[in-house]
Amino acid sequence: MAVYTEVSDEALAEFLVQYDLGEATAFKGIAEGVENSNYLLRLTSGSYILTLYEKRVRREDLPYFVALMEHLAQHGISCPVPVPGRDGTALRELCGRPAAIITFLDGLSARRILPEHCRLLGEAMARLHLAGTNFTMKRANSLSLAGWRPLFEASAARAHEVQAGLADSLVEELDRLEADWPQDLPTGIIHADLFPDNVFFLSGRLSGIIDFYFACNDFLAYDLAICLNAWCFERDGSFNITKARCLLRAYESVRPLSRPELAALPILARGSAIRFLLTRLYDWLHHPEGALVEPKDPLEYWNKLLFHQGVRGPGDYGLD
Amino acid sequence: MAVYTEVSDEALAEFLVQYDLGEATAFKGIAEGVENSNYLLRLTSGSYILTLYEKRVRREDLPYFVALMEHLAQHGISCPVPVPGRDGTALRELCGRPAAIITFLDGLSARRILPEHCRLLGEAMARLHLAGTNFTMKRANSLSLAGWRPLFEASAARAHEVQAGLADSLVEELDRLEADWPQDLPTGIIHADLFPDNVFFLSGRLSGIIDFYFACNDFLAYDLAICLNAWCFERDGSFNITKARCLLRAYESVRPLSRPELAALPILARGSAIRFLLTRLYDWLHHPEGALVEPKDPLEYWNKLLFHQGVRGPGDYGLD
Repeated sequence: MAVYTEVSDEALAEFLVQYDLGEATAFKGIAEGVENSNYLLRLTSGSYILTLYEKRVRREDLPYFVALMEHLAQHGISCPVPVPGRDGTALRELCGRPAAIITFLDGLSARRILPEHCRLLGEAMARLHLAGTNFTMKRANSLSLAGWRPLFEASAARAHEVQAGLADSLVEELDRLEADWPQDLPTGIIHADLFPDNVFFLSGRLSGIIDFYFACNDFLAYDLAICLNAWCFERDGSFNITKARCLLRAYESVRPLSRPELAALPILARGSAIRFLLTRLYDWLHHPEGALVEPKDPLEYWNKLLFHQGVRGPGDYGLD
Repeated sequence: MAVYTEVSDEALAEFLVQYDLGEATAFKGIAEGVENSNYLLRLTSGSYILTLYEKRVRREDLPYFVALMEHLAQHGISCPVPVPGRDGTALRELCGRPAAIITFLDGLSARRILPEHCRLLGEAMARLHLAGTNFTMKRANSLSLAGWRPLFEASAARAHEVQAGLADSLVEELDRLEADWPQDLPTGIIHADLFPDNVFFLSGRLSGIIDFYFACNDFLAYDLAICLNAWCFERDGSFNITKARCLLRAYESVRPLSRPELAALPILARGSAIRFLLTRLYDWLHHPEGALVEPKDPLEYWNKLLFHQGVRGPGDYGLD
């Protein structure tokens, strides 16, 4: 939940003058997203989200995100689209932050995941990957293999505060990931943060995908590995193979996985687990007192990592 | 900003079955109100707010608040109205909390207060007071004179952490307030928390008043005293007599103040200052680590108290 930047009446009014969207009739901070400030903005022309990009989003990456959302929407993906102002520009400044008005997407995120949600997600993710194939801009995944070691080192000295021996175990896992990480799987645009918060459902269908601010070029199957972790574990830590099967089969019904992609799933899932473990560990150890966002438990991802370390092949993810 | 209670898909769906309002098309936690959890709830029939009443609101007070909002709306005050379900009841349970769907009110709260806002507020408050005159339910103000001493005592031992000597100064002020507090001013329904967050403006008019969960029966002029503190001081701590004049004159254009009410304004303003000082002091000293709501600075109200201690009469509030 997040509203980091307060927007004054005058600042909002001046900002809106740059659009042809009418007058504001409501403006409420919404508790959505942990990286940016988001407001529900009702204008006489309809409902929108006003996003102020906070410091975790690099300013130089914003044109990529904006162009990507436009591209995906043009290719049939239901995602928010930045609305251009009178000057044709969607990205501008508000209260010293980069900011954009984006379209409001109907739908509700699933708070309790059912296998059917995973099925709908799998299909939609594969369609997203296909829609991204002819997008020409590139952005490296700063939170993939090369990013993990420095992220780990920023937390290593205090990792034992979270769990005894955690730093040693993480070094071992990083060594292994660096040795075994795949080299030449199919790549393309991935969302890279497809958590349940970022997927909307409506009347039994997937109505939209939001929050593209981690999107990048990487192995397509890595997006699946992220979702195995984010959608297929129960609250008690157990892996739900039914959900995984629904996710993977539905994905394959749109975009079949190659044999090397299937073989790489366990290592990609370990990589995805360490990626979220490391960012959560960092936030856990570094969050300022009285922060508005409660840090998430890094050990949830430690347990997921242990599961994937024990996986012998795609069969353990429900594919046989 | 506040969403304390997460509502699951099933719980929301079961809840909505009790209404004739259609299906949910969007459901977002909103960063509004610090006492309750509020969601923007878009249904096929329109937009609403879903409020879950958290522990600071006493369950036994809810029927009063609900009836009051209905009464005020029927008497021409633009305020949210709880929507009854199929059974005619507006108050029910959701996720173990009392909950209600209330109407969505258009408008934006003023983030930078102008004298015109104070004028519109004064008129609306007087109309609110008049509309409340024939409301028959009663609720004592638990945060008035009798409530301050116990509230102070819960923080007294640690008050020096906020400012050296604060406890002694507060005892002195409480003694004075207990000796001088008025006895027989005109009473009625007051909002008792008319901060800028709770007042919406749209197209140059005041479009609505929200958050009646401190409303009670008390001196009508005490509501004005609260607003002198909440609307008429600048960020640098200085008192803006122009705003105060706008507020009070506009109020008097609808409901003239009696001579005893005018004379009591300084002591009521001191009381209002100590009321918010004490709740903030308590929250400052007792807020749990990692709380979602940042505690507000109690000393802001210490400075306001000092101002009112120096006031010689209504002239210092712009009335001559």
